[in-house]
Amino acid sequence: MKLYGYFRSSAAYRTRIALNLKGLAWDPTYIHLTRDGGEQFKPDYLKLNPQALVPALEDDDGTVLTQSMAIVEYLDETRPEPPLLPKSPAERARVRAIAQAVACDIHPLNNLRVLRFLTKDLGLSEDDKNRWYKHWVETGLDAVEKLLAGHPATGRFCHGETPTLADICLVPQVANARRFDCDLSNCPTVVAIEQACLEMPAFSSAAPENQPDAA
Amino acid sequence: MKLYGYFRSSAAYRTRIALNLKGLAWDPTYIHLTRDGGEQFKPDYLKLNPQALVPALEDDDGTVLTQSMAIVEYLDETRPEPPLLPKSPAERARVRAIAQAVACDIHPLNNLRVLRFLTKDLGLSEDDKNRWYKHWVETGLDAVEKLLAGHPATGRFCHGETPTLADICLVPQVANARRFDCDLSNCPTVVAIEQACLEMPAFSSAAPENQPDAA
Repeated sequence: MKLYGYFRSSAAYRTRIALNLKGLAWDPTYIHLTRDGGEQFKPDYLKLNPQALVPALEDDDGTVLTQSMAIVEYLDETRPEPPLLPKSPAERARVRAIAQAVACDIHPLNNLRVLRFLTKDLGLSEDDKNRWYKHWVETGLDAVEKLLAGHPATGRFCHGETPTLADICLVPQVANARRFDCDLSNCPTVVAIEQACLEMPAFSSAAPENQPDAA
Repeated sequence: MKLYGYFRSSAAYRTRIALNLKGLAWDPTYIHLTRDGGEQFKPDYLKLNPQALVPALEDDDGTVLTQSMAIVEYLDETRPEPPLLPKSPAERARVRAIAQAVACDIHPLNNLRVLRFLTKDLGLSEDDKNRWYKHWVETGLDAVEKLLAGHPATGRFCHGETPTLADICLVPQVANARRFDCDLSNCPTVVAIEQACLEMPAFSSAAPENQPDAA
């Protein structure tokens, strides 16, 4: 299995966690998102992923997959143990909704290409860029906290006592929040779940700072 | 089944299409996103969806669901006919990836709350706001076109000859592109699929302009 990723990409981080949780080894290809104008725009990579985004995963049979949440669901369908989604439709919907509260409502607003467009194309100052970043991360994680805190299905992890797609999306987002010094004081449940996750080598070894291309 | 939505919300539009394709009737509650500072912020609605976003769906047994893609998957798991996802994991991954190329990489950048923050909080001009809008819609749909055009699995719809989650996400996004006069000349496959979808009453009757709250 080949994973095309970048150490700092949250979406690639999600995929690394899922592969680790499934106990799957992968052959890494590093796509540096800022070097040489962005290696994601090279013709060979665009053939794999015309969106010019990481990650892309190539399975052993040659199937190429893109979009981190779709990749995690694919891994869960093709390698069911340990499961990354609960069994019942309502529970699966809750896990997916938490994942999407991060992957649709927070992360798209603060990834590299968006921050670049704000400063380089629209001429926003660094201060305004940081205000934008913190606004979406803080309001977004505050809402995730409300989805989690006091909900009977929340356990050591976002849903119960084992990690799911929701935790896989949450942990990289909290890492970004910390990197940009966002206020997490309203999010004790989020922080407790992050800590529970990071005690698992599947999460901690997938962290950006532990990737070979982070040097 | 109760659907909390707003005519112009793309995410609510997706949910309406899915309910129609499944042949499910719903009892609508209209959450006006701009009236009175936004009805999505009223305490009663926040109890249903702490994210203050539409849609939310309440199933007949009282289960409350949020996040449009999670809702579509829930409907597909609880009411399997007609299926909105293919059978094989690789095909399901392709459909989800196309859906997410819209729902994670285009739509989050041009919804109402984001456009408002750009102009009201960051002081961008209307021209710059429109430039932002067009940039993400056009580069985003150009990438979706590349995922679709010439791919052997693309048919009358994004994946084969029946509509899936991918079409459910694509059609509302193209409607937004038209509303903001974006350039679709690079996207003939996207436009052909949109037309095929809109020939189906399940899609056309779900369109924003056909909702009672559009008046």
